[in-house]
Amino acid sequence: MSQTDTARLLIACDDQPGIVAAVANVLAQHGANIISLDQHSTDAEGGRFFQRTVIHLPGLAASRPALEASIEEVAERFGMEWSLHDTSRRKRVAIFVSKYDHCLMELLWRQQRGQLDVDITMVVSNHPDLAEAVRTFGVPFVHIPGGTGPEAKAAMESRQLELLQGNVDLVVLARYMQILTDDFIERIGAPVINIHHSFLPAFIGANPYARAKERGVKLIGATAHYATADLDEGPIIEQDVTRVTHSESAAELQSRGADVERLVLARAVQWHAEDRVIVHGRSTVIL
Amino acid sequence: MSQTDTARLLIACDDQPGIVAAVANVLAQHGANIISLDQHSTDAEGGRFFQRTVIHLPGLAASRPALEASIEEVAERFGMEWSLHDTSRRKRVAIFVSKYDHCLMELLWRQQRGQLDVDITMVVSNHPDLAEAVRTFGVPFVHIPGGTGPEAKAAMESRQLELLQGNVDLVVLARYMQILTDDFIERIGAPVINIHHSFLPAFIGANPYARAKERGVKLIGATAHYATADLDEGPIIEQDVTRVTHSESAAELQSRGADVERLVLARAVQWHAEDRVIVHGRSTVIL
Amino acid sequence: MSQTDTARLLIACDDQPGIVAAVANVLAQHGANIISLDQHSTDAEGGRFFQRTVIHLPGLAASRPALEASIEEVAERFGMEWSLHDTSRRKRVAIFVSKYDHCLMELLWRQQRGQLDVDITMVVSNHPDLAEAVRTFGVPFVHIPGGTGPEAKAAMESRQLELLQGNVDLVVLARYMQILTDDFIERIGAPVINIHHSFLPAFIGANPYARAKERGVKLIGATAHYATADLDEGPIIEQDVTRVTHSESAAELQSRGADVERLVLARAVQWHAEDRVIVHGRSTVIL
Amino acid sequence: MSQTDTARLLIACDDQPGIVAAVANVLAQHGANIISLDQHSTDAEGGRFFQRTVIHLPGLAASRPALEASIEEVAERFGMEWSLHDTSRRKRVAIFVSKYDHCLMELLWRQQRGQLDVDITMVVSNHPDLAEAVRTFGVPFVHIPGGTGPEAKAAMESRQLELLQGNVDLVVLARYMQILTDDFIERIGAPVINIHHSFLPAFIGANPYARAKERGVKLIGATAHYATADLDEGPIIEQDVTRVTHSESAAELQSRGADVERLVLARAVQWHAEDRVIVHGRSTVIL
Repeated sequence: MSQTDTARLLIACDDQPGIVAAVANVLAQHGANIISLDQHSTDAEGGRFFQRTVIHLPGLAASRPALEASIEEVAERFGMEWSLHDTSRRKRVAIFVSKYDHCLMELLWRQQRGQLDVDITMVVSNHPDLAEAVRTFGVPFVHIPGGTGPEAKAAMESRQLELLQGNVDLVVLARYMQILTDDFIERIGAPVINIHHSFLPAFIGANPYARAKERGVKLIGATAHYATADLDEGPIIEQDVTRVTHSESAAELQSRGADVERLVLARAVQWHAEDRVIVHGRSTVIL
Repeated sequence: MSQTDTARLLIACDDQPGIVAAVANVLAQHGANIISLDQHSTDAEGGRFFQRTVIHLPGLAASRPALEASIEEVAERFGMEWSLHDTSRRKRVAIFVSKYDHCLMELLWRQQRGQLDVDITMVVSNHPDLAEAVRTFGVPFVHIPGGTGPEAKAAMESRQLELLQGNVDLVVLARYMQILTDDFIERIGAPVINIHHSFLPAFIGANPYARAKERGVKLIGATAHYATADLDEGPIIEQDVTRVTHSESAAELQSRGADVERLVLARAVQWHAEDRVIVHGRSTVIL
Repeated sequence: MSQTDTARLLIACDDQPGIVAAVANVLAQHGANIISLDQHSTDAEGGRFFQRTVIHLPGLAASRPALEASIEEVAERFGMEWSLHDTSRRKRVAIFVSKYDHCLMELLWRQQRGQLDVDITMVVSNHPDLAEAVRTFGVPFVHIPGGTGPEAKAAMESRQLELLQGNVDLVVLARYMQILTDDFIERIGAPVINIHHSFLPAFIGANPYARAKERGVKLIGATAHYATADLDEGPIIEQDVTRVTHSESAAELQSRGADVERLVLARAVQWHAEDRVIVHGRSTVIL
Repeated sequence: MSQTDTARLLIACDDQPGIVAAVANVLAQHGANIISLDQHSTDAEGGRFFQRTVIHLPGLAASRPALEASIEEVAERFGMEWSLHDTSRRKRVAIFVSKYDHCLMELLWRQQRGQLDVDITMVVSNHPDLAEAVRTFGVPFVHIPGGTGPEAKAAMESRQLELLQGNVDLVVLARYMQILTDDFIERIGAPVINIHHSFLPAFIGANPYARAKERGVKLIGATAHYATADLDEGPIIEQDVTRVTHSESAAELQSRGADVERLVLARAVQWHAEDRVIVHGRSTVIL
């Protein structure tokens, strides 16, 4: 399907009668055809309502201001938060990485193959190791070394913020082995997706594969979530697991887990790229 | 959620602008609140459109005739097929079975536990073996023996039709080891769901587990589908698989497969019970 | 395969050269044929060695003392722990249950169908509710009510121990909603398998489905493990998960999870019944 | 674990008493320690016996002739086929590819990361498109164009054979869109692994994703198998599936399936590299 003249309308409000009809009418009045509509109510009564509507509107660019004005009227009536995303405008993504390359390469590769609807505008790393691998894809690689102590960390984050602010719509931590400060996450001005190498909330924190081996679990997994100030506690976007046995060492679990990590992160980034993920408190709604 | 005063509206028509708005308006005019709405278009342009809407309408019984009249007006305008299902009216189900009990018991058991929203009104079998197991659940068991040759078959089907016609909304073949005639399927007056003990279209026909063993497959599966005149060719509702190894015999594959069969069939029947399954040519849309 | 004259030999010792040959020689000298042999070393060097050997020995009962004497010689040489299990002697199992019936029914039902190689000799419950359902299977149901306070608990455990000691080879907690005291677990004289309704170590403790919903996980699971004094910390035998979405309520997660629980518990009990599970510290080796 | 001085012994013979002991004794006599041992009998009685034994033997190179002579004696006694593979000698692999790159890239990438224990010595293609992508990995890319008609085909295969004979231990068809002639497969002198883009035996032949869409299946899959003269009928090494819905187009199924293909093929090649796969008639035993 051509992406021209299509857009995604996301809305969220307290559940109440008449929302679907009101939105559908506004769209119909402006000549927008509904390509798909997904909605979710958190409770049968008294809950929160979410809707994602993909529309096709010939001459979208010209019609957009009038459409937005009409949506705003409905939104005020229902107490709605809303946003309208032109599907032809791909999100600009910065990937943060340290030395592990599997998640990074999966994203670069899928993007190149047309399976990831984003623009990867830069890769930022605290190590120089992956520069060549990244530049092969025609993507800028920026090495911002860390250092020891809070001052070096502050300096590093300050340089990262200069680079990112206003320039990216999404930051992806593709096994970036540094903890971001709360201040950094607040000032970055874009959502941050992290991949954690365990099935959260199992094995929160460091060395999950070693701890999975020690605990003798029969499945290992990975979790993609929005990064928040609370480490490993942000809203979960996607998770998956794979079966393992007693015969696999911690190193083999890590290798097996790497395959889960890259697929889980790729799915999460793609869903975010398609405006399918709505944060609701500590959890997400995927529409 | 209380099921009182809720209903499910299914519609299908050629895709065209304004369907969602038109339906939502009719519902709003009659005071029906949309609890959930799922839709699917087979193509971006020129395809078929399907929608399932769950509504809440206080005083549904009294308001229903007027609502139906309004829906019919919209339906004529858009060339829609539609149906409105009161969620408080559970479907009446007859289960056909031979000697294998695993699928039968799963359905009886889930129904008893409140996990299957149907009324199981009778179990029909060509063997007497499972009579007591069925009657323990308070469900009538009717033994209609088969026989040899087409005349005996016709007599059996004639007795079955007497029992079923007008009395059931769904027939479930829970490993019923007899082939139904086309005539029977046409005259039965209700949809028929069959469980096939393979991942169709692999191993169409008899003895799939023996053939799976012989072929050395690494996964075995089961398929729930609507029965049509073409054996094993009806629209697929649900499928699943489980991993097997070379060390498992054909008998063990059969035992492992039985667990997949009963879960797949239970899901398919539950989805049908919730009016989630719409047949589209040889396939299904699950809303 | 006929189970007559077959046995399972389990051995565990520090890894060292020559174990497999020594054991195979003893077996060959006594005319025992190796039907299957599985082994595992925890490390390439300096680890622990485990082996499960299924043998066929015509006239097993008569030959057993001499065979055991020879095995003991080898065992002393290698510092081996070992046990020899006649496959014709099925383990005697007591199932503990409260009010939830899904895990209990799965075990009773599989046992009846010949898919669980144990004898279920009694079901013990602190509630009378499931008496009839159990007795339908010809299995004794013993109601030992609990009570309030440590004295009532001690009295209940005392009655349970009278019933169990010497009479059972395995106790299965099939969603038994009481915490066992350390003293009880020590004195029971048989291993205890528990089913926990989460993917441990995620959601250790009470109400895992509610907490899974609150945390917004995308998969829910179940864990079968040996019960130890540390609640939910015993060696894991089996785990599995199923995918869920934001649209499912905590009650639906519980219902979905119940299907995982019963399959996971049934697999764990069957593996234990086949002497496949060897405890190694906090984890298990499944041979 | 260091791979030095380790080897894998594969044996196959008619099942009979004493095999395990005889082999273990030979190994013990030569000072070889058994690191792992896996065996499989196709039937409890009268079947075929397979065993894979990983051994550690200090000074393997020097001791090998004597060890082989002793194994040969045992082999003659039991009518065994056997082979002994030095783990330090990695298999030389040629990858055949046309225009799709996903399976090729997965193999190159895993090999580079140390997750695929083979040497990729060349990539052969009937199209020039992927030359640069391959050479980036330091692997030779050989473009052997096809042509129209049987003579061009024979010329192409002749050039391929010149390149391969004596130079490779394994050929991998990584979505190579040409049919190999029986003659070519016979003369190539190395096993050939193919990836088929369906869950065989469902959708044998061309365009499986389009046919899966048309048939409305709920899972799509991929199959890695040894290529034989009968297209898509060779012994299956590995298979997997992924869940799909009615909302995915045939193109999306193809994209989703590509992820399954690359993981299935990578697992199959790795198992072959570790000498885990033994062909038994039309099926395989994975030890």
